[in-house]
Amino acid sequence: MSDPLGASAQEQETERDAFRARFRNVRQRTVSLCSPLSTDDHGVQTMPDVSPPKWHLAHTTWFFDRFLLRDAENGDYRPGFDRPLFDRLFNSYYKGVGPHHPRHERGLITRPTLEEVHRYRREIDERVERFCLKSSSSAWEKGRKMLELGLHHEQQHQELLLTDIKHILFSNPRRPIYLLRPGRAPQKPAPPLAWFDYPEGIQKIGHEGDGFSFDNERPRHRVFLEARSLASRLVTNGEYLEFIKDGGYASPKFWLSDGWDAVRANGWEAPLYWEKEGNVWTVTTLYGRRAADPGEPVAHVSYYEADAFARWAGARLPTEAEWETAAAGASPENGNFADANNFHPSPARDDAGRPQQLFGDVWEWTASPYAAYPGFRPEEGAVSEYNGKFMCNQMVLRGGSCATPGGHVRASYRNFFPPHARWQFSGIRLARDL
Amino acid sequence: MSDPLGASAQEQETERDAFRARFRNVRQRTVSLCSPLSTDDHGVQTMPDVSPPKWHLAHTTWFFDRFLLRDAENGDYRPGFDRPLFDRLFNSYYKGVGPHHPRHERGLITRPTLEEVHRYRREIDERVERFCLKSSSSAWEKGRKMLELGLHHEQQHQELLLTDIKHILFSNPRRPIYLLRPGRAPQKPAPPLAWFDYPEGIQKIGHEGDGFSFDNERPRHRVFLEARSLASRLVTNGEYLEFIKDGGYASPKFWLSDGWDAVRANGWEAPLYWEKEGNVWTVTTLYGRRAADPGEPVAHVSYYEADAFARWAGARLPTEAEWETAAAGASPENGNFADANNFHPSPARDDAGRPQQLFGDVWEWTASPYAAYPGFRPEEGAVSEYNGKFMCNQMVLRGGSCATPGGHVRASYRNFFPPHARWQFSGIRLARDL
Amino acid sequence: MSDPLGASAQEQETERDAFRARFRNVRQRTVSLCSPLSTDDHGVQTMPDVSPPKWHLAHTTWFFDRFLLRDAENGDYRPGFDRPLFDRLFNSYYKGVGPHHPRHERGLITRPTLEEVHRYRREIDERVERFCLKSSSSAWEKGRKMLELGLHHEQQHQELLLTDIKHILFSNPRRPIYLLRPGRAPQKPAPPLAWFDYPEGIQKIGHEGDGFSFDNERPRHRVFLEARSLASRLVTNGEYLEFIKDGGYASPKFWLSDGWDAVRANGWEAPLYWEKEGNVWTVTTLYGRRAADPGEPVAHVSYYEADAFARWAGARLPTEAEWETAAAGASPENGNFADANNFHPSPARDDAGRPQQLFGDVWEWTASPYAAYPGFRPEEGAVSEYNGKFMCNQMVLRGGSCATPGGHVRASYRNFFPPHARWQFSGIRLARDL
Amino acid sequence: MSDPLGASAQEQETERDAFRARFRNVRQRTVSLCSPLSTDDHGVQTMPDVSPPKWHLAHTTWFFDRFLLRDAENGDYRPGFDRPLFDRLFNSYYKGVGPHHPRHERGLITRPTLEEVHRYRREIDERVERFCLKSSSSAWEKGRKMLELGLHHEQQHQELLLTDIKHILFSNPRRPIYLLRPGRAPQKPAPPLAWFDYPEGIQKIGHEGDGFSFDNERPRHRVFLEARSLASRLVTNGEYLEFIKDGGYASPKFWLSDGWDAVRANGWEAPLYWEKEGNVWTVTTLYGRRAADPGEPVAHVSYYEADAFARWAGARLPTEAEWETAAAGASPENGNFADANNFHPSPARDDAGRPQQLFGDVWEWTASPYAAYPGFRPEEGAVSEYNGKFMCNQMVLRGGSCATPGGHVRASYRNFFPPHARWQFSGIRLARDL
Repeated sequence: MSDPLGASAQEQETERDAFRARFRNVRQRTVSLCSPLSTDDHGVQTMPDVSPPKWHLAHTTWFFDRFLLRDAENGDYRPGFDRPLFDRLFNSYYKGVGPHHPRHERGLITRPTLEEVHRYRREIDERVERFCLKSSSSAWEKGRKMLELGLHHEQQHQELLLTDIKHILFSNPRRPIYLLRPGRAPQKPAPPLAWFDYPEGIQKIGHEGDGFSFDNERPRHRVFLEARSLASRLVTNGEYLEFIKDGGYASPKFWLSDGWDAVRANGWEAPLYWEKEGNVWTVTTLYGRRAADPGEPVAHVSYYEADAFARWAGARLPTEAEWETAAAGASPENGNFADANNFHPSPARDDAGRPQQLFGDVWEWTASPYAAYPGFRPEEGAVSEYNGKFMCNQMVLRGGSCATPGGHVRASYRNFFPPHARWQFSGIRLARDL
Repeated sequence: MSDPLGASAQEQETERDAFRARFRNVRQRTVSLCSPLSTDDHGVQTMPDVSPPKWHLAHTTWFFDRFLLRDAENGDYRPGFDRPLFDRLFNSYYKGVGPHHPRHERGLITRPTLEEVHRYRREIDERVERFCLKSSSSAWEKGRKMLELGLHHEQQHQELLLTDIKHILFSNPRRPIYLLRPGRAPQKPAPPLAWFDYPEGIQKIGHEGDGFSFDNERPRHRVFLEARSLASRLVTNGEYLEFIKDGGYASPKFWLSDGWDAVRANGWEAPLYWEKEGNVWTVTTLYGRRAADPGEPVAHVSYYEADAFARWAGARLPTEAEWETAAAGASPENGNFADANNFHPSPARDDAGRPQQLFGDVWEWTASPYAAYPGFRPEEGAVSEYNGKFMCNQMVLRGGSCATPGGHVRASYRNFFPPHARWQFSGIRLARDL
Repeated sequence: MSDPLGASAQEQETERDAFRARFRNVRQRTVSLCSPLSTDDHGVQTMPDVSPPKWHLAHTTWFFDRFLLRDAENGDYRPGFDRPLFDRLFNSYYKGVGPHHPRHERGLITRPTLEEVHRYRREIDERVERFCLKSSSSAWEKGRKMLELGLHHEQQHQELLLTDIKHILFSNPRRPIYLLRPGRAPQKPAPPLAWFDYPEGIQKIGHEGDGFSFDNERPRHRVFLEARSLASRLVTNGEYLEFIKDGGYASPKFWLSDGWDAVRANGWEAPLYWEKEGNVWTVTTLYGRRAADPGEPVAHVSYYEADAFARWAGARLPTEAEWETAAAGASPENGNFADANNFHPSPARDDAGRPQQLFGDVWEWTASPYAAYPGFRPEEGAVSEYNGKFMCNQMVLRGGSCATPGGHVRASYRNFFPPHARWQFSGIRLARDL
Repeated sequence: MSDPLGASAQEQETERDAFRARFRNVRQRTVSLCSPLSTDDHGVQTMPDVSPPKWHLAHTTWFFDRFLLRDAENGDYRPGFDRPLFDRLFNSYYKGVGPHHPRHERGLITRPTLEEVHRYRREIDERVERFCLKSSSSAWEKGRKMLELGLHHEQQHQELLLTDIKHILFSNPRRPIYLLRPGRAPQKPAPPLAWFDYPEGIQKIGHEGDGFSFDNERPRHRVFLEARSLASRLVTNGEYLEFIKDGGYASPKFWLSDGWDAVRANGWEAPLYWEKEGNVWTVTTLYGRRAADPGEPVAHVSYYEADAFARWAGARLPTEAEWETAAAGASPENGNFADANNFHPSPARDDAGRPQQLFGDVWEWTASPYAAYPGFRPEEGAVSEYNGKFMCNQMVLRGGSCATPGGHVRASYRNFFPPHARWQFSGIRLARDL
């Protein structure tokens, strides 16, 4: 018997097994990322953008509970937890499925306890695995897509977990470390900056084809691009230090009006996690605090800083279409992603005739406000709120970071944050007109 | 003798006369717009976005004083006013020429008095006219462009004057009127909404040629557009009322996340200046308060409301490129602009085979965030801050309004406001994919 | 015929004449205090505590309109102004007579205009004078007390007018002056500080007798006081400068917890209106800015500063009972009050065997929180809200200032402000235990 | 051998043993109060007034560590914890001993963990006990007073622990309970309100004698009091409900100006922890939520509410001197204190000829602002900041509550909170003039 998508029963079984294996891996990875934390670390929200690790553990679980199992189980199931409570506390913002706990009060949730959240995870894990193995063929076909979405969703939260943990630990005067790191070989200086030219013309961007993509990457469509150059690598700490030394933060000259307001209101003098100790700029990493390495890519800058730096450097940021066109020929495979357990960006290697560091290391701020592609259609149902609701007041970032799970991003992948956000691993690639 | 631009002395004289005449007209119009106000009305700032009329009168004068005359007169001139004070108070945001008074404290400026500001205007007027008539040929060539910019700048402030006055008067519990209006003929209902289709392909947008344009309209460049339809006219009060009645403001369903936050935080239940009296929705106009006319274009909506309405209506907002392409064939001449002294949008006439109301009536929110065109270069010098500094967190509006001076806008003209702004005459035109 | 209070017709007529004369004087003085101001100066509210002069002019008028005439005229009167509007705008806080305009939006009232407010004053003046001369005997007896209250009320606003004007003018970068002052003779140094002792025992404080008093001064009652000393004069600028130089504002040591928070939150480094110019501390007076005179009493300090200074000086502030007991033997007549048109505190003269400067110059912060006297009964009717509603979170000040109308204060007079308030002429007298 | 205080060696030994026993009891009680909580519950700060239980556990320990042991051990000791970190995190506000962590960020402290804090407690406990047993005679005499203070300090925090836990648990949508309570017998109605009269005259208040007291209770001094009546018992829920039903929260009539502002700003409609379920007002207790018992004393009202209720009832609040005079003859022993493990106020019993419920049940708001007694001298050294720094903007409460440890309060004991505070067990006793 064949289903409408053409998968035979045998194929479906293989697919079910593969999904279960991926599900286990992804779920286990989330728990594993939290393992260096104390119970106390799991509960706090050190700023509104941060969510407590306990909340991430619960919310990613709730995503499967609410969007996959609720439908698939037809209400037959007796949950071993306080479902109305969990539906309120661990709904992030999906207004279509009911009211949700205020975002800025996630750090006040003491019940369920961490232990209860782990029990919740185990219960849902078991049921999702049962769904993988034992659901009817039609239920499988109906739910498979949501399972897929849930896995990508959880990977996104794995990245947030790392960046939130970084902020939580940094907020403690003791500056506790997340992981011990073995001795590092002295870093090589970054190769000189080179430029790669691209001719004008119509290009296609966006996702199409069988692989997974989020709704905001679709449809693939044509754009007209002018001739341009892109930098061969990311901007380094050393280069960024020149900007600081040149009074970059001391004058409004290079800044957007909103950007300069942010500099003044927040007292910014350097990227987040930079602190001056005597005459040395230090950066705090997930391994602790150390002198800023001039060859490493600068990270934890806002869009405002990226934009101001680019103007100071006589360049500009690339648009997302320019970035995607350049990345179309590159492969994410060699990127410095979270799977390497580095959790910190690395210096570029020599360019070898094409742009380096497009994938991994740091998300690259683009000059593109986050907006709908022509013909954009949100996913159907409650998850229609996943991406489309945020298409305002945010800028697109591309390429993934050292905190992104390997295999999670694509050339067409669109990340987005407000222009003042700095707690992600966000950095800079320069572009210029030809 | 000919100058480098090829204008003969005779031509330059004609040009100087023409500029002086335009200058007189524009300057006189600003004063005239303030004439219905009391001295008291001139001083207040009823919300941060509003500037006091006295400040507009002074700032537009300062613009000529600072950017045209300061250079042209080589420091020979002894001002009859406190120049360091005025340079601080009436600089809006040009950080390149010195510190400026905080924007939100413009309503606290009691000195100079209104009378002193009018004296300032007369002094600067006299000197600019002298510049028109008696400056050296080279000074004229050098300053002419700034004079031109100053006139367009003042026209922009004429529009702000009207919208700020509207807000100031509305803030008084007595709701005083700005102007008496002769009896209005009963308004005709709006014609039915029709759609005009446009095929996919490369289009050119942006300004090029001899006429004046702002830097943000340049350079003219190619964009690829998908096939699409644009509505034949603006959305009416009657149509917007359907949205309200259908619970548009009561559920997050149609709203962007930031938009719904704005609805909640501000208690929005209708456009600005709408108030419910019993069962009747009234609108306050510059002529006083009256029942909302169902055939008139809806005005004073934020981007969030425009976007939510469009989604509710199964449509979307046009991008600025889609709008400009459609407007390329239309003429601003018949638009309902401020010269008609209506200061209120009018119902559409029958469409006659092409989109109506593209110019005048209300600014049309587009789906386009305000960003630099490819190859954008800001003006040189201090006025480089005029437009480019604001290319973040704002949306583009097109077409001008009933408060825009006639002749001020073009198809390529880009206005921009943050998505929550409502005190401008801002409205909605629908678009959809084909 | 005699009335219940025992006044013969003849006596009543004399009384009526006397009231009319006082009324004219007081009302004229208010207008006269505003005469150096531009129309523009009349409308602004430079901080929430400040009211625009126009509002003072209208509110003091409304007080007679609402509390005296409304009753006395039995609704016969057709007002020449928009009474519902004025009842809302110019009611300060009397919730018993209807809703009032928000206090912090008094600077947004452009209508009525200043001219209309003056017309309002003249209309009400005429009617109050008619009431003085032509009301029935019983109406007179009934209204006389409210007329009295209204006059004292207006005197209080005369003081606020001066202190609000000082703040309004100071807020302008030009620092315009209120009045020109003839050349000042060099000030003599203050006499050395001496102490006057008072023995322990029961004392009576509070007002009793025929003269006018506010409800909060009553009833006269017994208190037990310990033996104590009071300083012979006010603390001077010179003494306060020692406190500043000794790091008074740099360490929490001498401050109340809330006081230190205020220092940090507001960046206080000196009293209000003090600014450092090079190495010289200047003070801005109503005559302009000049070097701080070391012999003059320090003014414009908050309770927190007064309290911290006293602790630094090894002393404390007197309680209001201690102050009143000391002032019982002094006469307000020689005080430096507003009638002298000095509007600035003067150095003390030699003490001559008793405390100087108890009346006039600056209000003296006491250590007493503002609370009800035992047996306190608020006035009846709407004016019950006059004083009693504020008996929380405020401190008592005593003695009047150089901005207080002469004849307005008594030994029992209780002024009160929140501990952070600095825009009044408020200063310091020290006390200590014996 | 005798020491200067006249204790023989034998007596001192007995004293040391007694202190150690008390120390053990008090310290154990704190831990025991936290035992029903999860680790997660220990870390949160649900509003700025609340401190996380973990912080209470650490801060009370730090108090002994910093103020007793640091001196007593002469720096000989090598702490088993990060002392500079703990000195910063667990200093509440003692500016004299160094900088402290911001109060509103106590909920962000994840390190030390709860386990580390318990280890810290054990380490300090051991050292304090060693101090009790083995310190030199002179060290003992020097430190004994601080040990005493530390015990009373910890008892104060035991009360805060209970009220903070109540708020933390209430903040969870699940409203988890702190303790299970055995079935309650139906409560008897409260006895009718009676009044007890007190004659005018000089009274003495404040503490004197050998027993422990805080500095703010001293010196004992004379006050003159008018004749007055005090209510026989606390105001009940039933009586307070009448106030609510009579529109107490709906009109400004009975409220202080600041009080009415608080009602409006916070949307108060009833005491804290009251919620309307259909037509029934429920209260949340540490045992869970149940219908408000009309006979129980009303609790969790602010000063503003207490004051408004009293005015509505035609009465007033007693001053602290009036309260203390009445309580002088009563004994705290029978009060409903925390030792009973009720943690909730109980209905009054019949009055038996004198005021009931003066001690325990709920703290009674008095009409007295918190101020220094005549001749007040703060403790010496760093703990001088204990009480005196807060003598502003607070009101005095008397008598202890059901969350106060038994034996902790006295007739002269002065508690103080800002007038808007509601999270303590704070209630109302009426008074009136005679």
